[in-house]
Formats: sequence, C-alpha cells, structure tokens
Amino acid sequence: MAEENNLSFILNKPFDVSFSERPKPTLKDPHDVLVAVNYTGICGSDVHYWVEGKIGSFVVEKPMVLGHESSGTVVQIGSSVTSLKVGDKVALEPGIPCRRCTACLSGKYNLCDDMIFAATPPYDGTLTGFWVSPEDFCYKLPSHVSLQEGALIEPLAVAVHITKQASITPGQTVVVMGAGPVGLLCCAVAKAYGASKIVSVDIQPSRLDFAKDFAATHTFTPSRVSAEENASNLLSQTGLGQGADAVIDASGAEPSIQTSIHVVRRGGVYVQGGMGKPDISFPIMALCAKEITAKGSFRYGSGDYRLAVELVSSRKVDVKALITKTVEFADAEQAFKDVKEGKGIKILIKGPNEKA
Amino acid sequence: MAEENNLSFILNKPFDVSFSERPKPTLKDPHDVLVAVNYTGICGSDVHYWVEGKIGSFVVEKPMVLGHESSGTVVQIGSSVTSLKVGDKVALEPGIPCRRCTACLSGKYNLCDDMIFAATPPYDGTLTGFWVSPEDFCYKLPSHVSLQEGALIEPLAVAVHITKQASITPGQTVVVMGAGPVGLLCCAVAKAYGASKIVSVDIQPSRLDFAKDFAATHTFTPSRVSAEENASNLLSQTGLGQGADAVIDASGAEPSIQTSIHVVRRGGVYVQGGMGKPDISFPIMALCAKEITAKGSFRYGSGDYRLAVELVSSRKVDVKALITKTVEFADAEQAFKDVKEGKGIKILIKGPNEKA
Amino acid sequence: MAEENNLSFILNKPFDVSFSERPKPTLKDPHDVLVAVNYTGICGSDVHYWVEGKIGSFVVEKPMVLGHESSGTVVQIGSSVTSLKVGDKVALEPGIPCRRCTACLSGKYNLCDDMIFAATPPYDGTLTGFWVSPEDFCYKLPSHVSLQEGALIEPLAVAVHITKQASITPGQTVVVMGAGPVGLLCCAVAKAYGASKIVSVDIQPSRLDFAKDFAATHTFTPSRVSAEENASNLLSQTGLGQGADAVIDASGAEPSIQTSIHVVRRGGVYVQGGMGKPDISFPIMALCAKEITAKGSFRYGSGDYRLAVELVSSRKVDVKALITKTVEFADAEQAFKDVKEGKGIKILIKGPNEKA
Amino acid sequence: MAEENNLSFILNKPFDVSFSERPKPTLKDPHDVLVAVNYTGICGSDVHYWVEGKIGSFVVEKPMVLGHESSGTVVQIGSSVTSLKVGDKVALEPGIPCRRCTACLSGKYNLCDDMIFAATPPYDGTLTGFWVSPEDFCYKLPSHVSLQEGALIEPLAVAVHITKQASITPGQTVVVMGAGPVGLLCCAVAKAYGASKIVSVDIQPSRLDFAKDFAATHTFTPSRVSAEENASNLLSQTGLGQGADAVIDASGAEPSIQTSIHVVRRGGVYVQGGMGKPDISFPIMALCAKEITAKGSFRYGSGDYRLAVELVSSRKVDVKALITKTVEFADAEQAFKDVKEGKGIKILIKGPNEKA
Repeated sequence: MAEENNLSFILNKPFDVSFSERPKPTLKDPHDVLVAVNYTGICGSDVHYWVEGKIGSFVVEKPMVLGHESSGTVVQIGSSVTSLKVGDKVALEPGIPCRRCTACLSGKYNLCDDMIFAATPPYDGTLTGFWVSPEDFCYKLPSHVSLQEGALIEPLAVAVHITKQASITPGQTVVVMGAGPVGLLCCAVAKAYGASKIVSVDIQPSRLDFAKDFAATHTFTPSRVSAEENASNLLSQTGLGQGADAVIDASGAEPSIQTSIHVVRRGGVYVQGGMGKPDISFPIMALCAKEITAKGSFRYGSGDYRLAVELVSSRKVDVKALITKTVEFADAEQAFKDVKEGKGIKILIKGPNEKA
Repeated sequence: MAEENNLSFILNKPFDVSFSERPKPTLKDPHDVLVAVNYTGICGSDVHYWVEGKIGSFVVEKPMVLGHESSGTVVQIGSSVTSLKVGDKVALEPGIPCRRCTACLSGKYNLCDDMIFAATPPYDGTLTGFWVSPEDFCYKLPSHVSLQEGALIEPLAVAVHITKQASITPGQTVVVMGAGPVGLLCCAVAKAYGASKIVSVDIQPSRLDFAKDFAATHTFTPSRVSAEENASNLLSQTGLGQGADAVIDASGAEPSIQTSIHVVRRGGVYVQGGMGKPDISFPIMALCAKEITAKGSFRYGSGDYRLAVELVSSRKVDVKALITKTVEFADAEQAFKDVKEGKGIKILIKGPNEKA
Repeated sequence: MAEENNLSFILNKPFDVSFSERPKPTLKDPHDVLVAVNYTGICGSDVHYWVEGKIGSFVVEKPMVLGHESSGTVVQIGSSVTSLKVGDKVALEPGIPCRRCTACLSGKYNLCDDMIFAATPPYDGTLTGFWVSPEDFCYKLPSHVSLQEGALIEPLAVAVHITKQASITPGQTVVVMGAGPVGLLCCAVAKAYGASKIVSVDIQPSRLDFAKDFAATHTFTPSRVSAEENASNLLSQTGLGQGADAVIDASGAEPSIQTSIHVVRRGGVYVQGGMGKPDISFPIMALCAKEITAKGSFRYGSGDYRLAVELVSSRKVDVKALITKTVEFADAEQAFKDVKEGKGIKILIKGPNEKA
Repeated sequence: MAEENNLSFILNKPFDVSFSERPKPTLKDPHDVLVAVNYTGICGSDVHYWVEGKIGSFVVEKPMVLGHESSGTVVQIGSSVTSLKVGDKVALEPGIPCRRCTACLSGKYNLCDDMIFAATPPYDGTLTGFWVSPEDFCYKLPSHVSLQEGALIEPLAVAVHITKQASITPGQTVVVMGAGPVGLLCCAVAKAYGASKIVSVDIQPSRLDFAKDFAATHTFTPSRVSAEENASNLLSQTGLGQGADAVIDASGAEPSIQTSIHVVRRGGVYVQGGMGKPDISFPIMALCAKEITAKGSFRYGSGDYRLAVELVSSRKVDVKALITKTVEFADAEQAFKDVKEGKGIKILIKGPNEKA
C-alpha cells in the first residue's frame, strides 16, 4: 500500500469502467478530515449510471468515480476539527450542502440546489482510496459497530428519511412496497418507530421470506389484477381493515404506486421513496376523496445519519443481515454485474488500501 | 305560505326534476333546531347529479332533494339548545358526522364513513322549505351579514379547508389552478392567510379579470404546450423564480394537475381540491425528487365553517361579489340549466317560503 | 351474586366511606353497553378525594362512588352497538365528552368543558357493580390480555397522553421525574416510542431499582442542592451532554419541575404530567432563552386508550409488573389506606360481583 | 469622511462610553460583503449592557462596540457573492451562526451555541462605520423601503419569531402583554397572520392609544389585583369568552406572565418573548390542567428576516410609525439616556459616515 496513491474505480461511459490513480485529496477547510475508505456498498443508482450513463437530467459527461455508500477511517484532521481524531471509524454522508441557501438555513439541506453529492455527475464518488469530508458529515461509529456495518449506514439513512416522511407512531400499520435493500430497511425503521403491523410487498417470494425474518410482520404477493383488487386483497389478507395508516413505495413501479393509494386509509400517508418512470397513471381522485397526504422523499437530511448510526448501535436494525458478500476492490466491475443481475441483497467492495 | 308545507326540488333521474311537498321534518334530538331555508346556491356537484345521476360510487337510486349550500332562519329549537334562538339567521353545514368513529373522535369528521350529507344519495338536500340540523352545525350570522351571503358560506368553507391543507403562512407564494367559485375563494382565503403573491390560472380571460379584481395579484393563461413548458412560462411571467410555495388545483383538469407539480418549489405543497377524472398521468418522480407534499382536500371539517363566517363578517372575503343572480324557487330548473352552461359565477335559489 | 344489586364504595366526606347498594344503571342510548366491573385500580386522585374531599375546584358535596381505573365484562348491549357483544372483556375509558363542543369537534375531547368523568364530583365512579358506557369508550381486550391488566389501561393511557405531548422520536433522550405508577409507565411508553436513553428520577432508591428493571436505561437520585446543580449532576452522570430532548415531570414536585427546565436541551420539550401546588417558583427565562416548548398534559384523548391496549397486547409494556396485589371489594377502605401509606405500586380492588 | 476610518461607539464599563476609531474590517470569506452602516436603532438590551455591564451570563469584560439593529449600504462584495452588488441597501441580521452544529443543520440556527452576535460580549456591535457580513445575512431592501425602515427590520424580526412561535391562524384571538416596540410589532405581525382580535395590554395609557392606532383591535389596562382577576376582567372586557387562542408576553413582567396563563384558553398557546427576572411565581397547574403549550422565543431564525422585509415592503407593518427621532452618531450617548428614560418608542442613530 503506497499512502500517496489513490486508486479509483471510474465510469467512463455506459458499461465502460476502469481503475486509475487519482490525486489524493487534501484538506480544503479547517473543519475537513481526510478519510481512508474501507468499504463501499453498491446502490441501484450506481448501477443505473453504469448501464445508462445518466439518471434523469444528471448525465455522466466525463469520467466519474462511482460509489457513495462508504465507511472509512480518519487519517488526518483539519485544525478546527474537534469531534474526530485520527483512527476514528466513520460512516460517510456523501452529499455536502452549501449551508447558505434558504433550504439549508431552514433545515432541509437535502433540498439544497448546490449540493455536492458523491457519484452524481459531475462529482466523483467514494470508490477510491481517500476521501475528504467536513467533520460534521462524518459519523463516528461506536466500537461495537463494524466498518462493514458502517457502509450500510447510507441506505439505512435513506430508509430513515423515507420513514420519517411517513410520520409513523407506535401502534400504526405500515405497508412497504418493494423488498429490496431500501424497502427492507424501511420495514426495520418502521418497527423502530413502533409500527404494530408491517406488511412487506414484493413479487419475489425469496425476498418476502427474508423480509419476514428481518422486520415485517406480514407479507403480500401482488397478482396480475387491477391495483384496486390487489389493494383489496392485501387489506383482507393482512387484517388491515379499512386501510393502512402509512404506505411507503420503495419500488418505483407503477402498479405498486397505484396499489399504494388504494391501500392507504382515509386521512393516511403515502410516501414515494423509490425512483422509476417520471410519469405514471395515478389515482388522483382517490387521493382527493380520501384526503391522503402524499410525500416525496429525497436522499436524507438533518439527523437522518445520526439516527441510522443509533439504530445500528442499539441493535434495533441488523444491517449485517443484508450483506450478501464483500469483494476486493479489484473485483468492483464483477460486483456491479452481480448487482445488476439481482444476486443477493447488498454487496460491499473493499477500499483499494484494504487488506485482502 | 302554508307553514306545514315543505315544497322541495327533487331529482328523479338524470334531467328529470320535479317539485313536490315532502313532510315537514321534526326535531329528533334535544340539540336539534328547525330552520326555514332562505337561500341555496347551486354547486357543480348538484349539476353533476342532475346530468349524470351519480358521482363516482354515489348513485341516485330514488328521488332525492337537491341542494346543500344554504342559509336559513331558525324557527324552532330543541330543549337542550343553548347557542341559538328562534329568529336567528344561520349558515347550514350540510353534512352531519356520526361523532363516534375514530375519524370523528380525532377531529377529522369530514372523513367520517357514516356522514349524512345533504344531496349525496341516499340523503335529501336543502332545496326544500324546512331543514333540521343539530345546533352545532348551524352557524349564526352576525347582523351585518346577509342571508344571501350566508348561502355562500358553504363554498367558502370548501375553500377554507383546501387552503388550510396548503399550510400557507404570510409572505408565501400561491398558485390556484381554476377560477371557478372555489378557485376564486381559495385566492381570497390565501390572501387572508397572508400570501404575498397569488396567481390565478384559467383558460377563460373573463374569469382571470374577475380573479384579479377579487383577490389574485397575478394571473396566467396556460397554452397548448406541455405541462413543463406551461409551468416554466408561469414561473417566469409571474416572477415566482424557483417555484411556488403552494399550488392549489381547484380545476380537476389533468393538464392543470400536471402543471401544478412542475410549478411547486422543492419542498413545497400541492393540494388537490377539485374533482375530475379518477386516474390521470401524473409526474410522480418530480413529486419524489422535489420532496413535494401533496394533499387531497375533501369537503370541510373542524373549524372551517366558523372561519368562513369570520372571513365574511370581517369583510376579508367579499362573497357577495360572486353572486350573479338570485332566482325564485319555481325557477330552480332554469337555474340548473344556467349553471350547466357556465352562465355567471354563483346563482342562488330562494327558499320556497321566501317572498318573491 | 344477585344480578340486580349494584354494591358501591362511596365517599361521604373526608375519611368517611361506606358500602351501599345503588340502583343498577340502565342503557340510555342505543350505542350504550352495560358492563359488570371486574377490577379497579386506585389512583392518587381517588386517595386525594378520600383525604381532602376535593381536588382544586372539584369538591365532593354529596356522597360519591369512588374509582375510575376499571376493566369489566359486557353484560348487555344497546340496539345500535356493533363493535361489542355480551361477554367481551373491556377496559373502560371513564370520561365521556359532550361530542358537540369546539374541543370535541376538533379532536381534543379531553378538553371538553362538559366532560362527565367517573369519580370527579358530582359524577359517580366505577367502584360499583355495573357501569354504563357508550361502546366507543369501551376497549375490547384481546384474549391474551387479562382483566387485571385491563384495569391498568387507564394509568397507561395517562402515560401515553403525556408521552405523546413530548413528541418523542427514535433515538431521543428522555428524563422522567417521579417513579410512581404514571412515571414508570411514561418510561415504558417512551421506550415504545424509540427513546434511546430513558432516565428515571426519584428520591426513593427502591423505586429507581424497579424503574431500571421496568423500562429506564439510567436512574438519578436528586440531592438537596439547587435545581441547576441537580440538573448539572443529572446530565453529567447520565451522559446526556447538553441536555435531554424531552423531560416529563410525573411528580408535581416544585424542585423536580425546576430541575426539569434546567435539564432540557435548547429547543427541547418539557411536559407537565403530574399535579401538585398550583403556583411554583419557575425558571421562566431559561424557558425563553433555551426556546423550550412546555406542555401541560390533562387526562387522555383521541387514540390514547387504543394505543394503551395495543402496547399491552403487543407486550411492549408489561403492566402486570406494576400490580402489587388484588383485594376483595369488601377490603376497599384498607386498600386506600395502603395506597396512602405508599405500600406497593398499584393495588387492584375486585368488583363486588367478582368471586373471592 | 475618510473612507478608511471606522469610528465606533464603545461601551467600556457601565455608564462609561467613548468614541474611537477601530480598524475597518475586511472580507474574510468569498461570500462576505462589506457594508457601510447607515442607521442603528437602540434596543433595550443595548441599554441594559450600558447600565449593568451584563445580561445574565454575558458580561462585558473588555470594551465592546454597542448596537445591533442596523441597516447599511453594500460597499464591497466578495468573489463568490451573487445576490448583492455594491450600492444595494440592506438590513443586517446581526447574529452569524456556525452552520455546522446540530441546531444549525436542523434549521434552528438561533439556538446555535457558537453564534457570533453583534453587541453580545465578547463580540462588537454595529454602532460603527463599516461592518462585514456573509451575504445571506444581509437582506436587500426594495427601492420603496427606506434605510431608516431597514433599521427596524431587526425588532420586527424579533416580533416575527415570537408570533410564529404562537402559531396564529386567521380568525384567532391574540393577547399581547406589553406595548413597547416588540409588543407593538407583535400586534402588527399577529394582524398579518390573520388574527381577528388583538388585545394590547400595558399600564401606560399613551402606549395603548398608540397600539390601537397601530394594530390592536382592543386594549386593556391591568389593575393592582390578582392575576386571575386581571385575566377575568380582560376576558370579559374584550369579549374573549373562555380565553384567547394565543397570548404573547412581550413585557417580561411577573404579573403579566401570570395573567397570560390565566388568559389563554384550554389548549391554547402562550409565548414568552420578553426578558425579565430569571425565576418567577408561575401557575404551573393551570398550564397542566388547561393543557397549554408554552414556548420560549429567542432572537430570530430561518426565514424571519425575510418575512420582516416582506411585511414592511407590502406595507402590512408600518415600522416608520415607531421611529420617534433620528440622531447624529455623535449624539449616541444622549440617545441611550433618552431610551433609558422611556422617551419615545424607537430612536435611530445615524452611522458615523452618514451626512448630518
């Protein structure tokens, strides 16, 4: 391991990736810390960039380092840093807001228009050796939380943000559409919020089996019938009566979203947490007549990472269970292929300086 | 005028109406009052029943008295009534909830599944001589508010409820899609909530002229271009910059709803207040990425009528300006035809015992 | 057991109680049910009436049946009752609101000025054989929840209401002043809301030991020092740093309330849940400068009983652990003496028709 | 006027002030702007430091420039500044938070522990020639708003923050204790929030006369009777019935605070906006039994300055009416004496470079 090297995994264009040394970053602000990246999980959006070269209006126009779900170890601290010291294990929050716009000043920094977000063009990601971050976007992991678990804090923070949008309180009933990593973590967070019934919905039986073991109290497999009929079947099979207090869509799939609206009770909440087609056929009059509150959820914001670390630290959410395997940095491309083919739940890639 | 008569205007089936005497209602509960109906406005839903015989799953299966936007005069009070006396002028809230279900006990009585709502099948409406109501659903009009204005409290309460859903605070910017009676009243209520910019949107120039005089600070006429393009034009023409804090759709029209989502700022609120097609093409990913809160609005609930009376009483909302004309009870059918043809804004029908 | 008898435990004046037969109540409304009372817990307010003959402006001016923490069995149902049947075991919510005032219609029925509340003068309580209630104020107990546990639903609902006022979310830190029944239950409810640190504060070591086993993560014993100093000691000993997210006072004691304000973090919440002296010396400028939200909590309201039943049913709160003993109806006076002397945590009295 | 001079008005110790040249400040960050100070209002806290040399734990230990209610003109901008240009007239928000702590990131920057606030020891204030500020804490004044009005934005922002804490909505009733500058501005802001009744309370008849002209709908003069009796008199004389929806204390006086609690309705809100004695006798059980929400209010935060500018710009709040007189910089000490003696409502001091 040569300390000054900074080997990175780079997307050149769709399906064209390479490894190369990039300049090792340096501290730019007295509040910055330098972190050696230990583990990085692969997210659906990473795979989407790899396959399509873009997500919506975000287009990869020059080679970009991939990855944004990372944990690392502090190797240098700026002169004003007080909360971290060299050697600390941290989870990295990969989006740094401007701290000055209306959104930032009002506590909604996830809506900052000038966000610098890892592996969102034109910004490089964390599948690299070293990463610089302001100290307040590095979250110290307690000694009993591993660095592998630390790499799962990012998707857990996504789930925390989604679930907060759903305003779940103890005793409520929740339906989560989609049992991928984020959907599964939403089930677990909903449980931590005290939900008494948590229904996981997916078309793959193996995922539902996992969900049941992981956090769901009930599961449901939709059929090829109308959204109303699926909703009616779901409610009767799971004993939800007149509807769920909250429905989270973590799938992005049109039929799931339609079913979601028919599954929410009058006055209930529906949160759109998964990305999919930009426009879909949507039961708007049901939203109106049932006086549903529908909310989008975008990344994570104030307090979400902190709560994610707390949920792992207190063992309320067992993120380890989601880790299918951990591969060497040199095997990053194969890991992307595996994720694209739906193999396993979450694959971690070791940092380039991590021992084999 | 024979006191015991109770002449009513009845829908038998689509386009088939008649006048007939119904039994004069009697007090059923010590908290009830008997009200002689003075004026009734015609609502789009009344016309819809007249034309189609149904709205969604509510089907007129037996002759039904029409009308639900009424003011009246108290003519008899039950033994437990303390807030009203004979001779009081009142606005009638036409939907009586069960008071016992979860929705009622939690303060969301508009979502009561056992609501008895005037002129919603199978319940008769208020285009009749006498009407019985619990005292707490009759709102005393101050002496300086006329009974004609009292008949406008109902649509104003609809606008109050919609606008409350939008959580508008002073200094915010609001766009209201549709400049029919409810859209116009939403503009006026938004003004009472302190909105600094209120944009009224409609395809009819005469309505926008009215809106400008009534409560809007800006107007916008959409073109036959995409929703994104209309949104972009609206924002630039009205100086709303990155988007409106709140958008209210009071039109129910698919293109308006689509434009609404593109007009809301990141983190803003969109309220669906108008009824239209059950399913539409909806920009769901914009809702997700902008983290919009979308809310339905259904009728009116706790405190809405009270605020509507207060807004008229304090002259913050000039409902008189919306009254196009007042016709005799005998001319009710012609009034329905006029409303169907879009003549004027709000037509009132005198009660059958009202002097010509 | 003579079915028509209705033996009751009556407070005549301070320290003067008697047993006598009262008329067995009858259904007054088609939504009413008749319940045979099985168990009743003794509350501090019951003892207060027994000792003082009044609480604040509520004065016992004629003999009054005591008791309001009861479970029972449905023995008759009204013609409109649909949610209960004869033989159902229920927890009784002992305060029936008017359902018609502004507070009731807005979902705050605990603030109804016309509340009829058991064992609050002039209304009789539940230490009697039979009790009539509207069905929506009787909560069916699942088969695996005992009638003894059912009698604890009332104090648990008090704790649920207090804790809801504190708006606790997962990961937050909570301090509860006082480890009597309500304080202990607040700890347990805070845990169900996901609090990560729960500090129980009391001057009796035995209560703190119980609290630690029951639900608290930390305990603290205040000293005879200033409130600021106790607050400072509490924060340092429990690792709460700059202050607790929420502080609940379930003691009503002046020093506890003062300490509470100094223990809350900037921007935190303090809830007054226990009754004590009407006026106290209060650190008002700390409230101002730390921008604390202070809330009163009064009885229980919409959804509180339902959640209390759910928490017991799901075994998140083990109310059984609080039951010190269960005594015969004939031993009611001795039970009051025991509670007054602080013997045990919660004593239950069997209903008069309950087998020995 | 020598551009490089930076004449400042300095508090050395209680009642000992002097004028001296301080170094003209320079831009420290690319987002900073340099502002020539035009007008500065005197606040009660300025006078308090002048008289006492401290406020609570904030002690003047070395000479400190006074003043924090200022408007100015941009004379230089940093390289990253985009929202302002040289020559812009601005209102200065005088407290700059750290932007990195939990409070800042959650949108509560007024609760930042590392706030740098003008004329709060050890930080210098704005009674000086030039002032450096980040651009996002300078608020551009529209051309029709004067620089004198601009100096009133600070106390108006205080009132905006207090009134936001009271969560006032249209039609509500509000009582404001104290008719000094902040109390008067709270009345005006409450009106902008749609309050239907606004009661101004003070012991000075001339202030109440002013309040009535300025924004209050009713006034009340408390007597030397108990707080309960004053509350009862206030409610009956102003027709507030069972209590006000919201009560704001802008006086800090113990009897006013006590009366406030007795004036709030059940379930209402009380906000402590004025500073006074640290501990007072407080009716805590009334807070509990009426389930009042009591909130502190500290300075101003996200969006408050922006709304204050909007309220002045839209002429909803006429801050000009509060300006008693404007004096030369050289007369600053006399102005402090006048404010201490209660002469007038608000006195402005010209900046040292402002023409006489």
